[in-house]
Amino acid sequence: MTHTERPLAPPLIVERWFNTDQPITLESLRGRIVVLHAFQMLCPGCVSTAIPQARKLNEIAKSIDGLVVLGIHTVFEHHAAMTPVSLEAFLHEYKIAFPVAVDRPSPDRPIPQTMAAYGFRGTPSTVIVDREGRIARHSFGAEDDLALGLILGNLLSAPPSTP
Amino acid sequence: MTHTERPLAPPLIVERWFNTDQPITLESLRGRIVVLHAFQMLCPGCVSTAIPQARKLNEIAKSIDGLVVLGIHTVFEHHAAMTPVSLEAFLHEYKIAFPVAVDRPSPDRPIPQTMAAYGFRGTPSTVIVDREGRIARHSFGAEDDLALGLILGNLLSAPPSTP
Amino acid sequence: MTHTERPLAPPLIVERWFNTDQPITLESLRGRIVVLHAFQMLCPGCVSTAIPQARKLNEIAKSIDGLVVLGIHTVFEHHAAMTPVSLEAFLHEYKIAFPVAVDRPSPDRPIPQTMAAYGFRGTPSTVIVDREGRIARHSFGAEDDLALGLILGNLLSAPPSTP
Amino acid sequence: MTHTERPLAPPLIVERWFNTDQPITLESLRGRIVVLHAFQMLCPGCVSTAIPQARKLNEIAKSIDGLVVLGIHTVFEHHAAMTPVSLEAFLHEYKIAFPVAVDRPSPDRPIPQTMAAYGFRGTPSTVIVDREGRIARHSFGAEDDLALGLILGNLLSAPPSTP
Repeated sequence: MTHTERPLAPPLIVERWFNTDQPITLESLRGRIVVLHAFQMLCPGCVSTAIPQARKLNEIAKSIDGLVVLGIHTVFEHHAAMTPVSLEAFLHEYKIAFPVAVDRPSPDRPIPQTMAAYGFRGTPSTVIVDREGRIARHSFGAEDDLALGLILGNLLSAPPSTP
Repeated sequence: MTHTERPLAPPLIVERWFNTDQPITLESLRGRIVVLHAFQMLCPGCVSTAIPQARKLNEIAKSIDGLVVLGIHTVFEHHAAMTPVSLEAFLHEYKIAFPVAVDRPSPDRPIPQTMAAYGFRGTPSTVIVDREGRIARHSFGAEDDLALGLILGNLLSAPPSTP
Repeated sequence: MTHTERPLAPPLIVERWFNTDQPITLESLRGRIVVLHAFQMLCPGCVSTAIPQARKLNEIAKSIDGLVVLGIHTVFEHHAAMTPVSLEAFLHEYKIAFPVAVDRPSPDRPIPQTMAAYGFRGTPSTVIVDREGRIARHSFGAEDDLALGLILGNLLSAPPSTP
Repeated sequence: MTHTERPLAPPLIVERWFNTDQPITLESLRGRIVVLHAFQMLCPGCVSTAIPQARKLNEIAKSIDGLVVLGIHTVFEHHAAMTPVSLEAFLHEYKIAFPVAVDRPSPDRPIPQTMAAYGFRGTPSTVIVDREGRIARHSFGAEDDLALGLILGNLLSAPPSTP
């Protein structure tokens, strides 16, 4: 699909942020590629695979212009077990340095608001947002490092489309 | 050292148990080999290595007479982050089926009471208690599967010492 | 560096090929990105890391236009142990499906001719050749999947430079 | 089964030995537990799993009385690719320090003679020979470290049976 056919990434609906002084919006990141990692701290697949990948990508991103890694803690089960207090200790113990948003709980159902807006099927989920704020890729489950790298390298190299 | 030179394992000082209807005492397990895994749910080394080992050992123990696996959640940091509510979700998500004790907090210091009694240096720690309730091995950090198996096989085979 | 500053990749000097009916030259692959994996069948790092990576990349390359994976068996030690007869069995057992060249031995020294022309320091070595036949990257030892993917994605997306 | 019901381990039928000055017979090892690892140098499962396990066990055996690790190279396919010359380089590159026998080829079929005598189904295969030279365990494929350790610890601890 051409860039303009990609759906616009919905705004993040956030209760609070960790690892950043200021709230972050996707709008403020236009012009950059954003990799958004949705996880739960008690999700085994997130801990064993997706979070190590996000950490590695965040290290690599330090030497690449225009690549940003964000986490979002999308709690949809065991809500009392995964509060922001527990998340803060988790981020510390797992040495997660990139900004992490707490997805805002929904008033009437277990799935939080950003998760609902994006239609995540569970955790881990990975969303790649292109320079224009559009969703270039949306996946559920473990992402292969090599395949993810190819997609990101491709997006990073592509010249911004002009309207 | 001969068996009688081994120190007696101190009693477990427990706030509450998971995965068992009845509280468990080491005394009630005399005649069996007990592998006691001390962990914290937000300890990366516990999650990646020690807990998978304890789970595997618990599976193997089902077909071995006289081998028992117990966990003990020895929270000595991030206390508000690792409450029994969070632990319960953790045990569910990580499919931990063996009995797990919550180490009783100390009134006056961060280290809980069983941890203090055993002198654990941190998590993960593994204690092997012999058939007479004595500490046959006490280790801190990751245990090699092959080395652990050799020790347990040895203990399981040895005839009970007679006073 | 700009593309034209990249050194031209020397021709492959080959004794024989496996997994291809026709000898392959880098010249015939102009317009495509070539990933050249130099290995020895008895090199533990090649077997545990580089060859699985090359195999995975070759699978991914099937659905990507303009990406080609080649192997080259650069025997510089234990020559009698790693003959083409042994290599053929190795390729079969390790299910290596991409074309593999046997680097032509040198008449007067242990290092074979392509290895000498490229200046490989050992195995595994990975060379990325760009669409114009120039060396975009040359590395020795294990390559991180994510980092390799980023570089390849970047090269694949970049428009051909025009002289 | 009781010890005396265990079948006697057939003698090793060996073309040549590596990593030992003298040929080794199972008879000369009576009174010790022998772990016999049957492998082929181009068998991926041997290289990734069984050989690392045998190496680790050989390290552990240095500090345990009465435990011996032996390898046997049972070539039953790709005979021209896995000659003793190639095996010697393999043992060097993979840092295999325990004694390794070359199973003697059969005059009339691909399966070598020790492999036939033991009835190995393929590689890797592991045989545990008890102190009396009887087969305590015979397995095909990857062995779990913890399970193997338990069996060996048990055998090492058991008092020799008296006739």
